[in-house]
Amino acid sequence: MDNNRPIGVFDSGIGGLSVLRQLIRYLPHERYVYLGDSARVPYGNKSSETVRRYGRECSEFLMEHDVKLIVVACNTASAVAMEAVEQIAVDIPVIGVIHPAAAAAIRATSNGRIGVIGTRATVSSEAYSKDIFRQVKDDNIHVYSHACPLFMPIVEEGWVDHPATRIIAEDYLKSLKQQDIDTLVLGCTHYPLLSQLLAELMPGVHLIDSGEHASKTALQLLADRNMLCGEKNEYSAKPQIDFFVTDIPSIFNRLAGDFLGFAVNSPKKITLDTV
Amino acid sequence: MDNNRPIGVFDSGIGGLSVLRQLIRYLPHERYVYLGDSARVPYGNKSSETVRRYGRECSEFLMEHDVKLIVVACNTASAVAMEAVEQIAVDIPVIGVIHPAAAAAIRATSNGRIGVIGTRATVSSEAYSKDIFRQVKDDNIHVYSHACPLFMPIVEEGWVDHPATRIIAEDYLKSLKQQDIDTLVLGCTHYPLLSQLLAELMPGVHLIDSGEHASKTALQLLADRNMLCGEKNEYSAKPQIDFFVTDIPSIFNRLAGDFLGFAVNSPKKITLDTV
Repeated sequence: MDNNRPIGVFDSGIGGLSVLRQLIRYLPHERYVYLGDSARVPYGNKSSETVRRYGRECSEFLMEHDVKLIVVACNTASAVAMEAVEQIAVDIPVIGVIHPAAAAAIRATSNGRIGVIGTRATVSSEAYSKDIFRQVKDDNIHVYSHACPLFMPIVEEGWVDHPATRIIAEDYLKSLKQQDIDTLVLGCTHYPLLSQLLAELMPGVHLIDSGEHASKTALQLLADRNMLCGEKNEYSAKPQIDFFVTDIPSIFNRLAGDFLGFAVNSPKKITLDTV
Repeated sequence: MDNNRPIGVFDSGIGGLSVLRQLIRYLPHERYVYLGDSARVPYGNKSSETVRRYGRECSEFLMEHDVKLIVVACNTASAVAMEAVEQIAVDIPVIGVIHPAAAAAIRATSNGRIGVIGTRATVSSEAYSKDIFRQVKDDNIHVYSHACPLFMPIVEEGWVDHPATRIIAEDYLKSLKQQDIDTLVLGCTHYPLLSQLLAELMPGVHLIDSGEHASKTALQLLADRNMLCGEKNEYSAKPQIDFFVTDIPSIFNRLAGDFLGFAVNSPKKITLDTV
């Protein structure tokens, strides 16, 4: 086992860069292979069957790059395609963004009232509430979900501070406020970019960033298995990322830096589609 | 030449159903094969190269169904992939949604000030202004474009009457109002569903529905070439449509009827992706 092998990360597009940002924060000395399936983005409006196929194809690509861990940096794929990815990964560990965030929400809540926001696909999958109730059998835990399909395009429009965004957010969060939640899972990799507004609208509520908790889980798993990268990079060096996409749309140049926290080198374009 | 062959229509998803609605209005006696490439929707955030590949694949599928005409019912594909589709179609005529709407805008304007709204991809392609200036060499014609990336997800959210939608629309239309346009091209197949709000916000401005004008062009082309369908269906009968999609997401059940004006039979799911 070569611990210097990279960590593989995939998402439907640029959203997973907010997860990669957290991975780099917790695991700055690792190498990364990131794949954004931007030719077919978003996954959130596709059927489960189609997302599973896409998840398999992304994982096969990462496996060809000899990764030591696969991080499914996409809530939709984490909701419906974990088993499909695990089948491709065989004995390589796989971490999704849902289970770690569900565990973090259970730890964070005091009153047992947890909110979840995400795309329509993630919310209809009920993946977060199912995961939470697999972890705790507790009648005092309640999960309230609300789909927020406009948050993703708003972030991509760069309208984080627009007056319309506040009105939309107030509308989306109304029912969760009424349920008196004390913990809110940001169940979409775009939502951390809205966390300032969400914190303002939900004062005193714990915001759970799914990418952050997936990254903590990755750190713990690699440490437990003695799989952390041996060679330490210089702190001043940029993290080493091989960056692949299935399409290079203009949004990459506009937004990749906002998601990742630093400028991205030009990604390599690859083709994944299969017959 | 068998005039009873169907008209082939394709789009990235359900948006093209607003074009099919207009085709059925102007050509109620035709048979239709509709393909929605919903496994890869939307095209508006993909690169031109990728959209051309998708356009070729959709056209090949329609050609296999022995169509007599291809209608590219998608502004993005009409902006960047007309030649790619024509190469596949060989001697079958191809109609996009841009050229007919550009011609209609030229006819409609009195003060020569034409506005165009669409996705970011359509607007950056400058396809409408280029087409307009290919049709008229007139220094008195001015085209002002504005990308409205949030209109599509708003329509898909069903928030046509939401207070936030009015704020967003006012923001998007502000610069076009300042330019004193008298004609506004709805350069996205989702936008006809917002036409009531747009008409309210732009009083006295001619709204150009690109699907409607593509359909008038299709009627004229088929009539000129004696290619209209011979057998007339009963008026009471539903139009005959073979409906194919590359994915069946929940949005079809929710919204297809709103775009098309009547309920859709279950579409057949096919796979287009190529190596």
